Amino acid sequence: MAKILVVYYSRSGNTRIMAEMVAQGTKNEGAEVDLKEVARVKPEELLNYDGIIIGSPTYYGTLAWEVKKLLDESVKFHGKLEGKVGGAFSSAANIGGGNETTILSILEAMLIHGMVIQGAYSGDHYGPVAINEPDARAKKQCLALGGRIARLAGKLVA
Amino acid sequence: MAKILVVYYSRSGNTRIMAEMVAQGTKNEGAEVDLKEVARVKPEELLNYDGIIIGSPTYYGTLAWEVKKLLDESVKFHGKLEGKVGGAFSSAANIGGGNETTILSILEAMLIHGMVIQGAYSGDHYGPVAINEPDARAKKQCLALGGRIARLAGKLVA
Amino acid sequence: MAKILVVYYSRSGNTRIMAEMVAQGTKNEGAEVDLKEVARVKPEELLNYDGIIIGSPTYYGTLAWEVKKLLDESVKFHGKLEGKVGGAFSSAANIGGGNETTILSILEAMLIHGMVIQGAYSGDHYGPVAINEPDARAKKQCLALGGRIARLAGKLVA
Amino acid sequence: MAKILVVYYSRSGNTRIMAEMVAQGTKNEGAEVDLKEVARVKPEELLNYDGIIIGSPTYYGTLAWEVKKLLDESVKFHGKLEGKVGGAFSSAANIGGGNETTILSILEAMLIHGMVIQGAYSGDHYGPVAINEPDARAKKQCLALGGRIARLAGKLVA
Repeated sequence: MAKILVVYYSRSGNTRIMAEMVAQGTKNEGAEVDLKEVARVKPEELLNYDGIIIGSPTYYGTLAWEVKKLLDESVKFHGKLEGKVGGAFSSAANIGGGNETTILSILEAMLIHGMVIQGAYSGDHYGPVAINEPDARAKKQCLALGGRIARLAGKLVA
Repeated sequence: MAKILVVYYSRSGNTRIMAEMVAQGTKNEGAEVDLKEVARVKPEELLNYDGIIIGSPTYYGTLAWEVKKLLDESVKFHGKLEGKVGGAFSSAANIGGGNETTILSILEAMLIHGMVIQGAYSGDHYGPVAINEPDARAKKQCLALGGRIARLAGKLVA
Repeated sequence: MAKILVVYYSRSGNTRIMAEMVAQGTKNEGAEVDLKEVARVKPEELLNYDGIIIGSPTYYGTLAWEVKKLLDESVKFHGKLEGKVGGAFSSAANIGGGNETTILSILEAMLIHGMVIQGAYSGDHYGPVAINEPDARAKKQCLALGGRIARLAGKLVA
Repeated sequence: MAKILVVYYSRSGNTRIMAEMVAQGTKNEGAEVDLKEVARVKPEELLNYDGIIIGSPTYYGTLAWEVKKLLDESVKFHGKLEGKVGGAFSSAANIGGGNETTILSILEAMLIHGMVIQGAYSGDHYGPVAINEPDARAKKQCLALGGRIARLAGKLVA
């Protein structure tokens, strides 16, 4: 059974709703999951999980600075996240609003940590995107991301 | 008066509809515009314009190979497009479907040619995105892109 | 034992040298590897491997059109590459020459196929980069990529 | 005469050296330039310039959180930077170390502000990259960026 952390930053509440659905998706696959607001996560806690999923609102096309701060501070144990599974999601105010680049900015940080990521061949390929309040479509994408990460982390932890 | 080329690849017709709206947007600002399917554009023709706007469907997160072929072949006059204005747009099958990265793959090629690009502070920031057949929202974005490029090219050509 | 395909496009020979080192890296981990020029790869062949590593020169910041054509044509079996492991590498004429975006343009296509990718916490994080003819540094990165993909594919295929 | 701001974050001093060369490049073109560490820049100050050039070390493939904080806070006057000219540069510890994606993460924010950016057809296409302490090659790129931005801002301000 894989241990997954879902960490998010949310001001409007939209990214939090997504985070809850992602966490639910990991549970549906039998994973053990912790759901935390980014301000409550110490960098060292990232070491305790097999999979780490990070959500951020779309602010100027990349992750919010509060999320980047966590990642920048994780440099102190650089190399120790190697082989863990990563995923990302984002809420935005607009289609074409910088949401894909926000997700990729998180995934790129995960790759630089030596982490493993997986895309989705249907739906939101890089990670779930919600336009404003998450609708049924976006929630389905979030459940799918959680499931995908839980399954992959489960395989790699075995 | 700026001379603008709108070049596109389209299989379903969605990107072609976007191209027509982008071209209309440039006309609304008084530009002279040519609208061409990519197969009918010789690389050398790019030299004849003050602004170049390129549209591609979203295929695997970057521009269609037919569009990339035109750009790869433009290497023979590398440096000669410096200072011209560029823009990009894309149609996709899905929100989060790779549309932003497709637009950026075109804009990156333009930057490597030394071209000048501009984002939009409202709407689709990097360039217009249509999800399937362009709706009123997407058409408005296309008109705005055409107008923006025509105005900027007009200023720089003066 | 994982089966790996290394496919590349090369005009100057630099990307071919990288491809050979990547293939050697997979062998060093006990994988079975095929090394092929992109013109000799039919899209369907991609289905036969547990891991696919693609190399392209850096042309205008994304993969060469010859490589994109292979990926665009792979749409006919979209979804069938899900869970396979992917990697990418690129040769360029210059530091800051668009090499990282070229590698990411390949990795993004792989994510859209539902494939699994992994970064490196040391060295070239997204994938190996050579500036002109691959030097000792670049070759070491290529060996490392081959090894990393072979190990990950081996785990996932088990 | 264009007014340019060069703003940077630097811990090792490498990005600061780059910032000084970029500022020198703008002066060589007759621009008036202010050079400031990011902690000393209030978001509102961005409104006072025709061109804004931002430098960041490469941390996990995107701009340092201290720089992102400035950009996130600039949302309060969103739309007011439209038409200003932007540029970006980054220092990194490694070729292929995430430096291009760091530069693009800054340029993407600028596009979302409606700003105008320009690539270089020779050298570092998206913006200058230094590997560790800036060498002669990197310094030349920095001078060129400063010059390019000053000239473009001069044209657009006229």
